[in-house]
Amino acid sequence: MRRHCVLALGFVLAFAAAAWAADLAAPSPNGLKMPPGFENWAVISISHRLDNKSMRVILGNDVAVKAARGGRINPWPDGAILAKVVWKEKPEEGWPDAIAPDALVHAEFMYKDSKRFAANGSGWGWARWLGKERRPYGQDAGVEGECIRCHAPVRDRDWVFSVPAPMP
Amino acid sequence: MRRHCVLALGFVLAFAAAAWAADLAAPSPNGLKMPPGFENWAVISISHRLDNKSMRVILGNDVAVKAARGGRINPWPDGAILAKVVWKEKPEEGWPDAIAPDALVHAEFMYKDSKRFAANGSGWGWARWLGKERRPYGQDAGVEGECIRCHAPVRDRDWVFSVPAPMP
Repeated sequence: MRRHCVLALGFVLAFAAAAWAADLAAPSPNGLKMPPGFENWAVISISHRLDNKSMRVILGNDVAVKAARGGRINPWPDGAILAKVVWKEKPEEGWPDAIAPDALVHAEFMYKDSKRFAANGSGWGWARWLGKERRPYGQDAGVEGECIRCHAPVRDRDWVFSVPAPMP
Repeated sequence: MRRHCVLALGFVLAFAAAAWAADLAAPSPNGLKMPPGFENWAVISISHRLDNKSMRVILGNDVAVKAARGGRINPWPDGAILAKVVWKEKPEEGWPDAIAPDALVHAEFMYKDSKRFAANGSGWGWARWLGKERRPYGQDAGVEGECIRCHAPVRDRDWVFSVPAPMP
């Protein structure tokens, strides 16, 4: 009987630990949560912004990667999530004519759900977390207005700047 | 009985198809094979070469990604494989002050095995496949000499240019 109790307690602790690990970052002010495990998602594309000297990798969840590689990106399918990790830039060590990532700036996310996010006019949810500490960005639920205004130049490409890079 | 035979035949065909799909690219002239599924590996870093106007993403297998994120990269552990996908560059559509990937150039790989690859002096195997068609690069087994000479500036960092980019 005592052994069963210890076993049950073990399961409860394991589930609690898993739930905690999957939700390390506090939610965005608009209620969106950082997708657990995104740092291992496959690559959609990369970019180097010369104007603010930053480098970026764009990752996708399974739905997004399948859509990107199958050319189904206008519109992106519901369920697709895109993650963009942004770093400051620096010269590559050992190859001065190359630019490489320096310090981490933030991670940004777009969540496609044409029904859930119809009200903001884009069909996407938007959120950003700052630095290694994954601090939610923004003061209130209106935080995504800033994202949407910046992405307006590509509203005709379903609001996504990056065209998926061709993979081998 | 006939049903069993059909079932058995189905399994044989399924295995053959899986083996074929996992080995679509012909081997490198030095015998190395393109790791199946590398296009879904997690990101280690990215870079933008200004001298030849190319952009790159560096991916890693599970061993490499664990080592990169745990700071165990000098030396990298045996079993680590790094993949670098290289594109020509172009201005990002919709954001003229950014550079993004254009056409695919090639995919390059480093395979760490300090015993198997001791003879070439680096402890790594090296291989490259060209374009979407995954055409093996090089004329003979000496192909890796070219890779090793180019990576000589970073022999003190276990021959790897990219320092892993900090992830959130």
